[in-house]
Amino acid sequence: MQKINFHDVIDSIKDPWEPIDIAFVSDAALRVAMIHGAYDWHIHRLEDELFFVLKGKIYIDTEQGTIELNELEGFLVKKGIRHRSRSDAPAWVLLFEPKETKTKGD
Amino acid sequence: MQKINFHDVIDSIKDPWEPIDIAFVSDAALRVAMIHGAYDWHIHRLEDELFFVLKGKIYIDTEQGTIELNELEGFLVKKGIRHRSRSDAPAWVLLFEPKETKTKGD
Repeated sequence: MQKINFHDVIDSIKDPWEPIDIAFVSDAALRVAMIHGAYDWHIHRLEDELFFVLKGKIYIDTEQGTIELNELEGFLVKKGIRHRSRSDAPAWVLLFEPKETKTKGD
Repeated sequence: MQKINFHDVIDSIKDPWEPIDIAFVSDAALRVAMIHGAYDWHIHRLEDELFFVLKGKIYIDTEQGTIELNELEGFLVKKGIRHRSRSDAPAWVLLFEPKETKTKGD
């Protein structure tokens, strides 16, 4: 009977690119991560990955262009799409992805 | 390259208890639903279901008690737990659940 307070989750995350598992449902995971600076370009060959901004603003760079995401905005990176996330200031996102997805890509 | 604007999704939902599919990842679905009034008590025998409040305030009633959820708060209803959602005013939630989850339970 424990509720999940995402304000607390956000406050608890001190380092970027280190997702925290919130819940698993079926074969999927809901995670929260801090984004700050620019991550390495990578590909998930088999997994779609959805980014949803909880706090702040991020960019998703792909080879087709850049998506700017503000709070309450999301973007689904389809499997096989080379991408990276980045932000100028610390930002926090929900990640919705298959459990086995590796943060750094394949 | 279409971003998902949850403000627009929220604005588009006129009726409670009619979830909209946002994305599927693996065997799980991310959905948005409006909650207003009290839903019927029900059980998902095989599926966990996570509620996450995007806008407003909701209550999850279970036989173990009631959880109040405000914005940026979530709660995982484990499979087999009899529950209902309710709210005094329209509220919008993200639902994270197996694709095959039936809104009304089994």
